[in-house]
Amino acid sequence: MNDPRHLHLNAFLMGVGHHEAAWRLPESDPFANTEVAHYQHLARIAERGLLDSVFFADSPSLMTHPARRPAEAIDPVLLLAAMSAVTERIGLIATASTTYDEPYNVARRFASLDAISHGRAGWNVVTSAAEDAGANFGYDTIPGHATRYARAQEFLEVVTGLWSGWQPGAVVADKLAGVYADPALVRTLDHHGEHFSVRGPLNVGRSAQGWPVLVQAGSSPAGITLAARFAEAVFTAQRSLEDGQAFYRELKTATARAGRNPDHVKILPGIVPILGGTEEEALRLERDLDDLMVHEHALHQLAEQIGVAAQDLDLDAPLPAQVRPAEEIEGNRSRYELTVALARKERLTVRQLLNRLGGGRGHRTFAGTPEQLAGTIEQWFRSGAADGFNVMAPVLPSGLEAFVDHVVPLLQERGLFRREYAGSTLREHYGLPVPGLGVAREEASA
Amino acid sequence: MNDPRHLHLNAFLMGVGHHEAAWRLPESDPFANTEVAHYQHLARIAERGLLDSVFFADSPSLMTHPARRPAEAIDPVLLLAAMSAVTERIGLIATASTTYDEPYNVARRFASLDAISHGRAGWNVVTSAAEDAGANFGYDTIPGHATRYARAQEFLEVVTGLWSGWQPGAVVADKLAGVYADPALVRTLDHHGEHFSVRGPLNVGRSAQGWPVLVQAGSSPAGITLAARFAEAVFTAQRSLEDGQAFYRELKTATARAGRNPDHVKILPGIVPILGGTEEEALRLERDLDDLMVHEHALHQLAEQIGVAAQDLDLDAPLPAQVRPAEEIEGNRSRYELTVALARKERLTVRQLLNRLGGGRGHRTFAGTPEQLAGTIEQWFRSGAADGFNVMAPVLPSGLEAFVDHVVPLLQERGLFRREYAGSTLREHYGLPVPGLGVAREEASA
Repeated sequence: MNDPRHLHLNAFLMGVGHHEAAWRLPESDPFANTEVAHYQHLARIAERGLLDSVFFADSPSLMTHPARRPAEAIDPVLLLAAMSAVTERIGLIATASTTYDEPYNVARRFASLDAISHGRAGWNVVTSAAEDAGANFGYDTIPGHATRYARAQEFLEVVTGLWSGWQPGAVVADKLAGVYADPALVRTLDHHGEHFSVRGPLNVGRSAQGWPVLVQAGSSPAGITLAARFAEAVFTAQRSLEDGQAFYRELKTATARAGRNPDHVKILPGIVPILGGTEEEALRLERDLDDLMVHEHALHQLAEQIGVAAQDLDLDAPLPAQVRPAEEIEGNRSRYELTVALARKERLTVRQLLNRLGGGRGHRTFAGTPEQLAGTIEQWFRSGAADGFNVMAPVLPSGLEAFVDHVVPLLQERGLFRREYAGSTLREHYGLPVPGLGVAREEASA
Repeated sequence: MNDPRHLHLNAFLMGVGHHEAAWRLPESDPFANTEVAHYQHLARIAERGLLDSVFFADSPSLMTHPARRPAEAIDPVLLLAAMSAVTERIGLIATASTTYDEPYNVARRFASLDAISHGRAGWNVVTSAAEDAGANFGYDTIPGHATRYARAQEFLEVVTGLWSGWQPGAVVADKLAGVYADPALVRTLDHHGEHFSVRGPLNVGRSAQGWPVLVQAGSSPAGITLAARFAEAVFTAQRSLEDGQAFYRELKTATARAGRNPDHVKILPGIVPILGGTEEEALRLERDLDDLMVHEHALHQLAEQIGVAAQDLDLDAPLPAQVRPAEEIEGNRSRYELTVALARKERLTVRQLLNRLGGGRGHRTFAGTPEQLAGTIEQWFRSGAADGFNVMAPVLPSGLEAFVDHVVPLLQERGLFRREYAGSTLREHYGLPVPGLGVAREEASA
């Protein structure tokens, strides 16, 4: 291998696939969305492919109109606990909100998943931008962007503080002396801040990897600031190589400026792989999926997202010139900017835009052969645009199976990807230091 | 059988056993407290014994001094999700607090466990009385008894309202028409109350049993009021047959007065079975466990609980005449009353009291043979003191194995207990109606 680095691959799971019409394909079980066996099967496929991790997005709200597509969202941390029971190595990452939960509860839930999975847990930190979420927690509208990020920062200080309260070696389990843990190594936190007062200690101790890996996905300035300070992996949504390189440089630089080793934050752009034995076959699958979309379903959500009335959107015309300005967006600003930029840059009609959003919600879609995809992955990886990829199969399980069986072997042949797991924890898969061991050991393991 | 009713048996699980010195026995793995395989093994034993359910208590705080005994408490809902993956029938009940969480999050978490387990979930509703919990959530002291119960009642209204938002038949999954769910059968809640404003709908739908079974354990007047209105099973702590009968009558009467069928609340007193082939063998095990207790560890917690200074407690003298009056107790009032009454009634020294509390925290301890225990269980069941029992093995897994292998067969021979599972959901095991099907069907299934 020329490059001593290895790719990192995360399987972003979503029901029967990221494409919103996936459930309507003949191959799809439309009830699989709430069936744990489906998700356990996906975890086994990802582990067979030696992927670093699987991942679920999340919001504490109904994220789609229930007529439109499978709308239920089982608590992803519970799903991962059930998936951990049938796997041994694959990392398990779930999103949880800092806006609608308490830091003690979140710290405990992810430390619990980490204990259950023997060090395979990761937490994707979001501030919850869904318009509907606030109304489930007593807010008339969702709290503003700046408020959510200020709370998120303190939330992360509390969570990592609670996790570090159990020092290495705290549990001595000395039966003869009748001493279970050394109280000097189980520390209270005594945090008193603007948003939270939390005494601690947490009631869950260190795991095989110390504590869960912190993941982040926001790419607004506030999101990048938070990521630079805390994130160990970042899921992002850059569509061109140049955008990917620019974001990669920006985040690595910000991380170094925050006093951290830039190698300790792995950047994984999202990609929706629509694979076929030939390019034509791949394009046919893409067309079949788009043909199954019900555009009227999606129109209202788009209208709300960009701040126009639904009746002002014409499926066969471009976006109206006037949409709500970015600075008025209190929700998912990255998603808004992606959507508007995509429509303008590629001069899409509303229908075409909805097809693109329906396929991967603004992430990069790639329709082609495994060989073509492996080439693109290598290009991004070798030219400073990615440390790996967040793989968003349009249809599940078949899209993940295609990636694992046909793309992974090509990446291995190119010397880009592992041929077996070297470690057993999520930190080992991603090459991240074990926290809380002090500076010397942290450097040694890096 | 003379009695058409069947006993209901719940295995109350706790680390390596309810006895606080269980971890020091030669047979115990002192690290099992955080090992998922240990809990999966326990779930399989309970299912082999055809028990109705397993159950974890919980508090969002470190519940014991870390030197004293295994102190970690993995989030029980996650543990149950991992246990559901290796079992098919056993019910899965966890405690969660209405004081330190949001109703949307709790409704979703338990509905998720119910989906993952195909209708085997139950929620034990507590208002969290642990003195330390409040400090992890910004409170200088825990909120008062009355405040916690008022919040709990509204919390339950919101949670059951969210659960009932998805009507039977909501998911149509019509691929041809492109309609996943019937929006008319997925209702918002639009709750606006004193403590909560929650719009809904929940993002998890109905399970195989409708929604999770509601369990309750408080036996203060406020606890009984709440149980009469909402609880479908009650875990209680009566020590004598007469106390058991009185509580049973009181709760069944209160349930009828609240307009519910008293058969739809099952009453399960706790029992700590210390089993031996002979009575002498059982008493030896009890003595061995008591000898392993470190009384100094327990002394401070007792002192705090009853409101005296630790230095005023003499291990070999009775409790001081002056303890804090019940009406000043804001924490676990039932536990306090149990403790003080136990000491006074049985004229125990502090050391003896600590032994009794160390064995089952005030629950009834029974040391004897399987035949003797089966006799006691039958007596309570047939004389209106219990619909079943909450079995608190002092040592795990051996205590649960002994109960399943030696007591369950005797209960079956007496015609008191099932010889196979008749249903697959927790509601079927407990003979509870499926909620949300309307009056006619509810009566038919009762």
